[in-house]
Amino acid sequence: MLIDPNSDVASPVYFEDMTVGRHFNTGSVTLDEAEMIRFAEEYDPQPMHTGAGAEHDPLFGGIIGSGWYTAALTMKLVVGGELRSDARGRIGLGIELLRWPTPTRAGDILTAVTDILETRPSTSHPDRGIVKLRTLTYNQRREVTQELIANVLVPRRPA
Amino acid sequence: MLIDPNSDVASPVYFEDMTVGRHFNTGSVTLDEAEMIRFAEEYDPQPMHTGAGAEHDPLFGGIIGSGWYTAALTMKLVVGGELRSDARGRIGLGIELLRWPTPTRAGDILTAVTDILETRPSTSHPDRGIVKLRTLTYNQRREVTQELIANVLVPRRPA
Repeated sequence: MLIDPNSDVASPVYFEDMTVGRHFNTGSVTLDEAEMIRFAEEYDPQPMHTGAGAEHDPLFGGIIGSGWYTAALTMKLVVGGELRSDARGRIGLGIELLRWPTPTRAGDILTAVTDILETRPSTSHPDRGIVKLRTLTYNQRREVTQELIANVLVPRRPA
Repeated sequence: MLIDPNSDVASPVYFEDMTVGRHFNTGSVTLDEAEMIRFAEEYDPQPMHTGAGAEHDPLFGGIIGSGWYTAALTMKLVVGGELRSDARGRIGLGIELLRWPTPTRAGDILTAVTDILETRPSTSHPDRGIVKLRTLTYNQRREVTQELIANVLVPRRPA
């Protein structure tokens, strides 16, 4: 379930809008247990993620979501949130940091906030700029479930 | 489709086996176009990944896979490859670098190789160690589609 707080905001966000210090919110997504396990069975089939004996796991004591699932859901939140792009899309140039300080569990409600850290024009793509951003993904207790720092190629506003 | 070259190798790889300089291979996975697009529609719905007008994209000229899909497939390859874990699983402590130097496209055949960069015991978890590793994901032309450097909490061999 994805709730978008900006469903009436049609305009995309361009490089010119992504000024240092600004932050951009997203809607929320609730972790569905079946989808979380299906993702793990397909892409990260470790017992702590698929549930095979996870209730006995000494570290987590139950099924936790794969970090890659948290990353995918965060991308979903960002693409559908205040940071929506135009049709050219945004290209991830590289991720400098990705970590999962708090495990996710079924029923968690995730939301994300992106802060703009640095910006510079792209020399190779005059119609785009490069933005370094940090996206924090929170659960319903405001614990950070994911921290992401990335450099992204972002479309400029058309002339 | 996942082809595992080690289907007759039952024993997991432990911290003690992950010595600096060793490398571990995986089987291969072929990028299915429908699954690639389905993943994008669910988690990264940008036109270059879902196909809406992607044939006109000036950068890529066709649909490319989401980087998060490449990351998920790489995890699938590693979990099913020579680096298989025991039931305790491996926990990603943090990723220091993640980038996608070459786009993926439907029909690509991906395989991955993991090199061990550093190892040290875990002070907080005596039954585990911490391994810094690099996983390179190649396509069928041996182009690098993903580079990943991560720190992982790895089970020690049971006494």
